[in-house]
Amino acid sequence: MAAAIALSTRGRGISTPNPNVGCLVVRERHVVGRGWTQRGGRPHAEARALEEAMERARGATLYVTLEPCFHLSPRGPRCADLIARAGIGRVVIALRDPDPRTDGQGAAWLRDQGIAVDMGLMAEEAAAAMAGFVLRQTLGRPHVTLKLGLSLDGRIALASGESRWITGERARAHAHMERARADAILVGGGTLRADAPRLDVRLAGLDDRSPRRILLTRGAAPPGWDAIAAPQDIVALDRVDHLLVEGGAAAAAAFLRADLIDRLLLYRAPIVIGAGLAGIGDIGLADLAQAHGRWRLSDERHLGVDRLEVYERVRSA
Amino acid sequence: MAAAIALSTRGRGISTPNPNVGCLVVRERHVVGRGWTQRGGRPHAEARALEEAMERARGATLYVTLEPCFHLSPRGPRCADLIARAGIGRVVIALRDPDPRTDGQGAAWLRDQGIAVDMGLMAEEAAAAMAGFVLRQTLGRPHVTLKLGLSLDGRIALASGESRWITGERARAHAHMERARADAILVGGGTLRADAPRLDVRLAGLDDRSPRRILLTRGAAPPGWDAIAAPQDIVALDRVDHLLVEGGAAAAAAFLRADLIDRLLLYRAPIVIGAGLAGIGDIGLADLAQAHGRWRLSDERHLGVDRLEVYERVRSA
Repeated sequence: MAAAIALSTRGRGISTPNPNVGCLVVRERHVVGRGWTQRGGRPHAEARALEEAMERARGATLYVTLEPCFHLSPRGPRCADLIARAGIGRVVIALRDPDPRTDGQGAAWLRDQGIAVDMGLMAEEAAAAMAGFVLRQTLGRPHVTLKLGLSLDGRIALASGESRWITGERARAHAHMERARADAILVGGGTLRADAPRLDVRLAGLDDRSPRRILLTRGAAPPGWDAIAAPQDIVALDRVDHLLVEGGAAAAAAFLRADLIDRLLLYRAPIVIGAGLAGIGDIGLADLAQAHGRWRLSDERHLGVDRLEVYERVRSA
Repeated sequence: MAAAIALSTRGRGISTPNPNVGCLVVRERHVVGRGWTQRGGRPHAEARALEEAMERARGATLYVTLEPCFHLSPRGPRCADLIARAGIGRVVIALRDPDPRTDGQGAAWLRDQGIAVDMGLMAEEAAAAMAGFVLRQTLGRPHVTLKLGLSLDGRIALASGESRWITGERARAHAHMERARADAILVGGGTLRADAPRLDVRLAGLDDRSPRRILLTRGAAPPGWDAIAAPQDIVALDRVDHLLVEGGAAAAAAFLRADLIDRLLLYRAPIVIGAGLAGIGDIGLADLAQAHGRWRLSDERHLGVDRLEVYERVRSA
């Protein structure tokens, strides 16, 4: 299942309006099929994995990160049907589909066809890999990551605005990979005016993965951009499950104030800047006690001399 | 030798005017004597270790983090003499004594007595543990650590000045241990007026280890404090080998601007503050390129939910 979850992340940033699902078909301890949701949401991961497995699917075990869909769609076949027709012997599912059109019915129907079904294996990890889809289903909004490239003392630029470069090449390449996994990137008006960022993915082989660009502004969107007036408007963004907020300080603060940041992606360079621009503006924090217990370290790694720290918002369920 | 270096840190903060040395006497793979420089610099580490070993020192191996002293002092015996008289068979030394009164003569004299001598084992680690002594000998100034308790976004307090608490109990206990290992703590005038910090060591069993308090001010020192007018004046501080700078932003910036910080001790809490007080003021940085290559991560650890990052100033030798 860990391998299926890893496959699922390949569809992040391109699979909307469908969830980025990963799927493996395993027969006699050999992987005979692999799939993940393709651009635009079709084909589904299961369809791709079964297509690759061909007749080797008969009697095999299928691992999938999300319950196979059971509702009819004009856009393609139901995965539950495909699985039964391929002769799969056993289906292992991570996450039950929160979409009310499936929500357990896919698994039930497969069992009715005489297929062994296990559901719940690594459900938490799968949900994290499909965080945008899950939040869309539960809270009706995208998953939002705030990315900052910081000095040790929390600065994102000199007082002059100079910010090239705080972090090194490996950290910047990692940030571009994160861009490729987002459906859209958002910056504030000040950042657009000051930096005119391209916000594209500059990684070999992934140059077609540049996400949509969204501006947080009360004014109109420039050509090639979408605009929203307030963080809360992300609920209305079509086909955006994973949103990456790249600054500046006012946009970051607006999202934090609205408690709409789910994940902090902090690239920290081993430099001291001193007086300079802060990464995050006024978030309306009245006392320190309120600040505690909100963020949990979920990943940390070295990227050259820089460090990446990933924090997730702790939300009581 | 690693054990001897660990012992040496017990003398940090109390051993001036002498270096904080650690010493082990090992006979037939058993430790028969341990010592570190005592309060005020005497007895020396070797004297304590030999005293503990008694007649078991005969033919044993002595590990010591610094070359045994060879110069005569009215304050106590020469360690080289003590070692020879105890009948030690072999001496393993980490760091050659940079003090010109010994500087190789201790080792040479021991060899003349027919004792086997090895010098240089873990010399770098030993020098780091006695950093203050080494800097006194080489640059004529104490070793200076800047300690900051920070939020993820580099704030040390709310805009109101509230800073209790950013970090948790374990991080604060660690910071108190660092205080106990310093000869003196320095804060700026603003911090004294705003926080009236006690700057004492509040750890059971170490309450007698509170270091001297030094104020960075152009004015006079309040009762119980010493004062210096500029960071450069640390060269004149008597009996201070290890200085801990605890803030605020102006004092931190003054020391960084003078390039007199050797080590950053960053306690980072998993909180976001947003608009608030920065930990470091204007350090006179003109462009980002100058900021790089100056700091190297030397330690990192988790302290409860907080993280400690230790950076050392990279200085070309």
